[in-house]
Amino acid sequence: MAEFSQVELDEIYAFAIQLGKDAGQMLMDAAKLRMSGGGTGEQKEHVQKENAVDLVTETDENVEAYIRNAIEKKYPSHKFVGEESYSKGASRDYLIDDSPTWCVDPLDGTVNYIHLFPMFCVSIAFIHKNEPLIGVINAPFLNQFFSSCRGRGAFMNGDQPLPLIRNPVPPLPEKAPSGCVFSCEWGKDRRDRPDSNMHRKVESFVNMAAELGGRDGRGGMVHGMRSLGSATLDLAYVAMGAFDIWWEGGCWEWDVAAGIAILQEAGGLMTNANPPEDYANAPIEEVGLGSRLYLAIRPAGPSAAETGRQSQERTVREVWRRVRNLDYSRPGA
Amino acid sequence: MAEFSQVELDEIYAFAIQLGKDAGQMLMDAAKLRMSGGGTGEQKEHVQKENAVDLVTETDENVEAYIRNAIEKKYPSHKFVGEESYSKGASRDYLIDDSPTWCVDPLDGTVNYIHLFPMFCVSIAFIHKNEPLIGVINAPFLNQFFSSCRGRGAFMNGDQPLPLIRNPVPPLPEKAPSGCVFSCEWGKDRRDRPDSNMHRKVESFVNMAAELGGRDGRGGMVHGMRSLGSATLDLAYVAMGAFDIWWEGGCWEWDVAAGIAILQEAGGLMTNANPPEDYANAPIEEVGLGSRLYLAIRPAGPSAAETGRQSQERTVREVWRRVRNLDYSRPGA
Repeated sequence: MAEFSQVELDEIYAFAIQLGKDAGQMLMDAAKLRMSGGGTGEQKEHVQKENAVDLVTETDENVEAYIRNAIEKKYPSHKFVGEESYSKGASRDYLIDDSPTWCVDPLDGTVNYIHLFPMFCVSIAFIHKNEPLIGVINAPFLNQFFSSCRGRGAFMNGDQPLPLIRNPVPPLPEKAPSGCVFSCEWGKDRRDRPDSNMHRKVESFVNMAAELGGRDGRGGMVHGMRSLGSATLDLAYVAMGAFDIWWEGGCWEWDVAAGIAILQEAGGLMTNANPPEDYANAPIEEVGLGSRLYLAIRPAGPSAAETGRQSQERTVREVWRRVRNLDYSRPGA
Repeated sequence: MAEFSQVELDEIYAFAIQLGKDAGQMLMDAAKLRMSGGGTGEQKEHVQKENAVDLVTETDENVEAYIRNAIEKKYPSHKFVGEESYSKGASRDYLIDDSPTWCVDPLDGTVNYIHLFPMFCVSIAFIHKNEPLIGVINAPFLNQFFSSCRGRGAFMNGDQPLPLIRNPVPPLPEKAPSGCVFSCEWGKDRRDRPDSNMHRKVESFVNMAAELGGRDGRGGMVHGMRSLGSATLDLAYVAMGAFDIWWEGGCWEWDVAAGIAILQEAGGLMTNANPPEDYANAPIEEVGLGSRLYLAIRPAGPSAAETGRQSQERTVREVWRRVRNLDYSRPGA
């Protein structure tokens, strides 16, 4: 399979940005309809008859169909993997191969959208040879639009380069995770069994939060613990530099593909959430897009003592020292 | 002390809104300076020499001084209680009495602001006879401006009435807290001692999150767990109806005064975070502004079986059944 030239990528990027704008507008239009109780006439009857979850599912499907159709028309040879169409299929296989592929979540932060909490977005990634090359994330209720194209940088709202703090980009704190904002999600797996994912997560969260010296030396005393309810926006905020660390298990490739593209283009690091046995020395490898287990570290510049990458890797190991292995598998993985 | 007429309140409201706009602009201007690395010349040197925390403290103080001076000029007889000036004083007493008083947090979500995560805001309340009558919350990086005036309603961005979902306003879910978005904060007290506030909070969080039937019947299976790092915005999102429940201990009157004004004007309920012994039957009382222990429930409309207030009170008791008492005291309280 041939590589894409920068000119070709730029054209796909411009198309993806327009898709993100249109899809964001569709999400906001449907949200406003729910705010107003449905306007008048048939629409009003429809909004009042359906419950919030049904209306949101309908919007979700409409937005995915819109994006899929636009892509099929413009790039008929490209593959399409979307959250809605995937979820309806029987398989949970990882479907992305070396072909040019669009990986789309029409609505990330679905629970937020149902409740009209503004942390929701559309996420559109263009992937080639398993590498996310282009990412577009539009959070229309926040007026925040994130995008990146391999070779062109990563941006907020078109013109603000990511990370936001630059000239210089600060290194990770010396005592990381202390001084870091840690982003994590409780997720949907709430089983109250010994060693369930919920309990493994909570134990890890408490280690990250507790005072230094606490938790048998694993207390991380992070600067802040944040849970937004959107994996995609978590990643966007890591790329922005607003979150230092995001640690999560259980989400899928369409939740992270655009975020990974933007994070990597901004200079961030993405690796595996689950600590290897020799966490202090194991090589820090790029995570597979479909691994369902992600640890992201924000872009970092050098200090007098370290390169940016060194401070990122040091932070990865400090997180690994404090978190439990999570149990999210998938067929064939 | 005389009551304020609606005409007088309206004038104070217009003044408070302008203050909120100006202060939000000051916060954004200082944030942009940090994004760009300080522009040129002396400014650049200043931004690069100071660390983020010092710069933010400086902004915090500047914004509070601006607001205080503007109020002193316009309403010289009114009292002023601000986070910055209070924190520098020796006392931790509750200073609000029956006089007309402004209660201001120039910057809530300080950790977010340091890291440039957009969840920060300025919070301005006008209080009379211990009742917050006017609230203004401006989150400039989110383009979200919340405001309310007793007798005039509560709004987002000037013209969108709160709660956002109306015609009709939905009741709390039948099985609340199941189906609810639960907002909570880890806070700064991270002591790893048996029964520390951190451990009491975590136990409560896990009860709210766990599957129904789990945790010896206390599992709440909430729809989502959210932590934003800003008590003020947590409250604004409860008033908006985006969060159903906010439960928190440890914050202060300037963190919540404007939020309480907006929440109450939108139809929300605010009571004590700590469950009374007879949580199933105890009267549900309005919380004292300085109690440091808050439980907020979103605005709710009636169902066939209940009034909105009844569904709020039912939800309060279901939260009380699942949370621990927190230990945040203050002198004289």
